[in-house]
Amino acid sequence: MALPAGIIETDALVIGAGPVGLFQVFQLGLQDVKTHVVDALPAPGGQCIELYADKPIYDIPAIPVCTGRELVAKLMAQIAPFGASFHLGQIVTTLQKQDDGRFLVETSKSTRFLSKTVFIAAGVGAFQPRTLHVDGLATFEGTQLLHNVPDAAVCANRNVVIFGDGDEALEWALKLCAAHTDGHPHKAKRVTLVHRRDAFSAAPQTVERFRTLVQQGHIHFAPGQAVGIETVNERLTGIQIVDPEGQTRSLPLEMLLVLQGLSPKLGPVAQWGLDMERKQLQVDTEAFSTSVPGIFAVGDINTYPGKKKLILCGFHEATLAAFGAMPIITPEKKVLLQYTTTSPKLHKLLGVDSQKLA
Amino acid sequence: MALPAGIIETDALVIGAGPVGLFQVFQLGLQDVKTHVVDALPAPGGQCIELYADKPIYDIPAIPVCTGRELVAKLMAQIAPFGASFHLGQIVTTLQKQDDGRFLVETSKSTRFLSKTVFIAAGVGAFQPRTLHVDGLATFEGTQLLHNVPDAAVCANRNVVIFGDGDEALEWALKLCAAHTDGHPHKAKRVTLVHRRDAFSAAPQTVERFRTLVQQGHIHFAPGQAVGIETVNERLTGIQIVDPEGQTRSLPLEMLLVLQGLSPKLGPVAQWGLDMERKQLQVDTEAFSTSVPGIFAVGDINTYPGKKKLILCGFHEATLAAFGAMPIITPEKKVLLQYTTTSPKLHKLLGVDSQKLA
Repeated sequence: MALPAGIIETDALVIGAGPVGLFQVFQLGLQDVKTHVVDALPAPGGQCIELYADKPIYDIPAIPVCTGRELVAKLMAQIAPFGASFHLGQIVTTLQKQDDGRFLVETSKSTRFLSKTVFIAAGVGAFQPRTLHVDGLATFEGTQLLHNVPDAAVCANRNVVIFGDGDEALEWALKLCAAHTDGHPHKAKRVTLVHRRDAFSAAPQTVERFRTLVQQGHIHFAPGQAVGIETVNERLTGIQIVDPEGQTRSLPLEMLLVLQGLSPKLGPVAQWGLDMERKQLQVDTEAFSTSVPGIFAVGDINTYPGKKKLILCGFHEATLAAFGAMPIITPEKKVLLQYTTTSPKLHKLLGVDSQKLA
Repeated sequence: MALPAGIIETDALVIGAGPVGLFQVFQLGLQDVKTHVVDALPAPGGQCIELYADKPIYDIPAIPVCTGRELVAKLMAQIAPFGASFHLGQIVTTLQKQDDGRFLVETSKSTRFLSKTVFIAAGVGAFQPRTLHVDGLATFEGTQLLHNVPDAAVCANRNVVIFGDGDEALEWALKLCAAHTDGHPHKAKRVTLVHRRDAFSAAPQTVERFRTLVQQGHIHFAPGQAVGIETVNERLTGIQIVDPEGQTRSLPLEMLLVLQGLSPKLGPVAQWGLDMERKQLQVDTEAFSTSVPGIFAVGDINTYPGKKKLILCGFHEATLAAFGAMPIITPEKKVLLQYTTTSPKLHKLLGVDSQKLA
């Protein structure tokens, strides 16, 4: 039977490019299995990059200290010999078992895979923008409502309202403000920043520059929370907020930037029919298999007796999952444990010269 | 009840100072538990030092390559903040559960511990010298029979027989040989090296120098295997060997050096009443507890469904064992999972400054 055009056939698909997903690639690589990796973020690293890129981690075995960013760089170096294909900036939306036992998987960017095995290393979920929960707003996503700003030009000469209190929100307020002398083109007509209170999590210097421009009347600050929208002829014309005193007011706008950072969402994983316990995927500890044979779960997303959400535990889980997957990927082959120190076969896969090592 | 003098009371005793035993120290350290560590070898490192000190390891997560020696150095740096006490060059001989639930443990050097918990990280066993299996020989251990040579003086002007084919055996043959001009004092009267065949595992240059001195008649080589001893007035006077042709001959001697390297022996662990399967300790995968509560087994010595003898798996096992031990060590305290990246308590234990990190 012919496959639909553009579908990627693979032995193994890894969902999540955090440290455990990356080590899953490594362990499958040692088994001579090539992987495809999907992640919601634009770069590998997951929580390590999103939540603690520059913060120190002390409990990775034999690495007394490293930052999240350094850990990811080391893992990327380690998996380099195995040439995994990364499909970034997209989340897996559907996963369906086929009659031949393989899994048909599709992402939010319509990338499609037909894979013998799936390794869910999705951590606390896919990192997605924190949005405003206001009825009717979602329909403006991508037109008048943006969760990231691809280009300042979309705000040029517009009345812009920004939600957020971190670096990204305040920096865009500054960039778009006509009076801010940073040489940035495409200034907005008016910039209003909304946050529930007059306190900001952005870097102190950024907050200082922001406050100065607010005092000078070049940027407007409106404390409050969104409660509703205003539309005219299917165009978004304003957002209603309630201020800390409980008063409702309306802010007219042409562009709405919601820059409140990312938050992990378990998302569609919960709909794939896998046994779960408190939003975690239940696995055995022999191969870290879910309740559906062929689908494994490793790292923070799984649960089993004794489970600790630690990166180093995920490394172990990914290792046993790789061994557990081999009878599905190559049922005809017997898998023996080999050591990277001594095995010429593993040296070949790793691209190192056994002769030189002897 | 007063304790016998010199007994060491502790919360945790780790048997084995290989990589997994060292990481056990780290994970207990994060729980604010101080450990004592016993190992048969004279330095920490276990198999990593004994079997592949200078060979590369490729599958330690986030370390693309390191030697066994480097891995041990990194782990020693990582556990430095926790001030574990090492008791090296001795093996645990007895382990007995006391009425109060603690374990009385004694070593071959008569070090005694009374510990709330015991972590067996003994790998493939304690590394001990490969000896000759000949009736009656053991009684000469430490007098006329040596498995390592503390000082060449013990062989000065003696008739010396050496068993072995590696660097240590051949180098001692060279050092003790009167005709070998290395400036080494305390030459022997006569040096005979015995190995079952005329092929040696020592470094090629060493083998070459050895063969030259054998050809010149300064060192004697006797191919064969030991089958018996000769004694006069309770002194060892000779050893009987069978050569490759099946002929028995006798080699007179005053000192016998058996330098055949080390080999791991499971040893007394098998007598402690723990459930075993094919010489491995059976554990659960929740806390890596053996069949005796309070005794945990981690690393190559344990077995459970899916077990792979990999260092990185031992790291995970040691981590869950540390959590599993806490209800025994401090039953009154509730243990919460904290992260080294964010926990001021863990920063204090690690000796890092939380303020500086913020």
